[in-house]
Amino acid sequence: DEKEEEELRRRFMAPPVSGLRELRRRRRELRSRMELLIMETQGEVCRALAALDPGAAFAVDTWERKEGGGGISCVLQDGEVFEKAGVNVSVVSGLLSEEAARQMRSRGKSLKAKDGKLPFCAMGVSSVIHPKNPHVPTMHFNYRYFEIEEADGTKQWWFGGGTDLTPTYLNEEDAVHFHKTLKEACDKHDLKLYPKYKKWCDDYFYIKHRGERRGIGGIFFDDVDSPSKEEVFQFVKSCAKAVVPCYVPIVKRHCHDSFTPEEKQWQQLRRGRYVEFNLVYDRGTKFGLLTPGSRIESILMSLPLTARWEYMHTPPESSKEAEILEVLRNPKDWVH
Amino acid sequence: DEKEEEELRRRFMAPPVSGLRELRRRRRELRSRMELLIMETQGEVCRALAALDPGAAFAVDTWERKEGGGGISCVLQDGEVFEKAGVNVSVVSGLLSEEAARQMRSRGKSLKAKDGKLPFCAMGVSSVIHPKNPHVPTMHFNYRYFEIEEADGTKQWWFGGGTDLTPTYLNEEDAVHFHKTLKEACDKHDLKLYPKYKKWCDDYFYIKHRGERRGIGGIFFDDVDSPSKEEVFQFVKSCAKAVVPCYVPIVKRHCHDSFTPEEKQWQQLRRGRYVEFNLVYDRGTKFGLLTPGSRIESILMSLPLTARWEYMHTPPESSKEAEILEVLRNPKDWVH
Repeated sequence: DEKEEEELRRRFMAPPVSGLRELRRRRRELRSRMELLIMETQGEVCRALAALDPGAAFAVDTWERKEGGGGISCVLQDGEVFEKAGVNVSVVSGLLSEEAARQMRSRGKSLKAKDGKLPFCAMGVSSVIHPKNPHVPTMHFNYRYFEIEEADGTKQWWFGGGTDLTPTYLNEEDAVHFHKTLKEACDKHDLKLYPKYKKWCDDYFYIKHRGERRGIGGIFFDDVDSPSKEEVFQFVKSCAKAVVPCYVPIVKRHCHDSFTPEEKQWQQLRRGRYVEFNLVYDRGTKFGLLTPGSRIESILMSLPLTARWEYMHTPPESSKEAEILEVLRNPKDWVH
Repeated sequence: DEKEEEELRRRFMAPPVSGLRELRRRRRELRSRMELLIMETQGEVCRALAALDPGAAFAVDTWERKEGGGGISCVLQDGEVFEKAGVNVSVVSGLLSEEAARQMRSRGKSLKAKDGKLPFCAMGVSSVIHPKNPHVPTMHFNYRYFEIEEADGTKQWWFGGGTDLTPTYLNEEDAVHFHKTLKEACDKHDLKLYPKYKKWCDDYFYIKHRGERRGIGGIFFDDVDSPSKEEVFQFVKSCAKAVVPCYVPIVKRHCHDSFTPEEKQWQQLRRGRYVEFNLVYDRGTKFGLLTPGSRIESILMSLPLTARWEYMHTPPESSKEAEILEVLRNPKDWVH
């Protein structure tokens, strides 16, 4: 038993928010199993990325939230391979404000509050990886679990999450590998999941004012509370385990590709679009900015180190830049 | 009369949206006078800035809005003095969507719509100037006029606007000059205006999640419809005329200052905050992104050419970087 604890300690980036003892004591509860999963995912991803960027190291910050809970932020900045890579775990609880609750309701959950406040617990692992080389795509993933207690004591719970890729230039082989790996993770649970969540991803990461998606998609889901807590958890676990095999081979393949200053500049313009999506549309970011006591630095960790906005930039027809734009405007099916 | 027309043509960056003939024919109507004022302001500011950056020139784009109206966007990009300077005029009309109307209502206007649609006319001049040198502050101004027709035919009208400064480093002399020039413009109309609109500016340009203002303020007002249309117009005219004397002396004073790479980097981080404010909080930007057929490139012209986000960047105590942060956290009175 002590050996097992030792082993977990070795695999985690920091002690878990709820305490390792406590998590192991309540190991049968879904909350605890999810916290162990997100901690494990954080460790796994950080180790895999650090191995690709040997000169750099993840800085680990643990933080507490006055209102309840806390988190562990791991950030690698200005490495050889990664411009900015963040993998964040948060486990927070407390009362949901009216405004935050409205954000939830708009996602289709009807919640009956007592005195306008709802006790809640939210936990998740979220990550955005911005590489230096414009031939290595940006990757984002997030897996989260919510519990909310209504006025009459009934508990609502749901899972959300997804993994998606944002290349500066299109590489079909990479796109197929990424989507195929996600599809395999989904297919183990239900053949309907991948097509459904692939479409949800294309719809969610839509920069409406540009008429473009943020990237070439992946999977995205939210408010998932069926068929059962256990089954959804197992599905989320498969997705979390797919992050490293989705992405790491793509980084390895391209991190030493040569690139021109023009390619770097196009990457910077696409980073600008990334910022637009995250600040204008992303529900997670908006929710975070509204949640009192949330850790802003961890939420805005998703923003790239640098970005660029040029007035009226339009790539020439039939260029590699126009090629990726075409796919961002009209999403493709990468696996059948 | 023809001479006068010739003279206007010379002073404008492009033919006005409503046509010069038409504007002069309806010269007694406030709509026309306001359109002439914003056209004149655009010309004045563009000429003053171009004179400071002789190697660069403003590109002038005129555009039409399918739903009614159009605009003139003047942008100078990648000059010697200015990284990105945009001065935009728009004169649009049509029907306000439910969502856009809600945005208005939240500003305190109660509007009775017919079939959920409100005929409206909106015009304004807006500008953001991002200089290269970190010792030259960013400046923004916007003066606008709205008319909305309610279901029963009554017309609501109001003016809005403001001018504000966003320095990378604090220079007290500049801050005092900027605020004093604005105060003088306000004081000609009513001594109560400057203190009221100075405070409104500090309150409006607040980046809540950072606990910082975007800059050292200036003036800001919205929904102003008293004491009378004529008097508010005259006030707006004084403000518009103050833009060049507010800002140009500051640019001249510092555009040849030497700077270090560290100072440039701090400017880039501050530019990141500028993006955060504009995309997360700015009503004008949000309203624009929601208005069907609005010209995205003109709205997002306000974003800097380049910006930067570092995880957990904190300037050392008593540094020049900490000095400006202090003022952004606790706004000061610059003139009494």
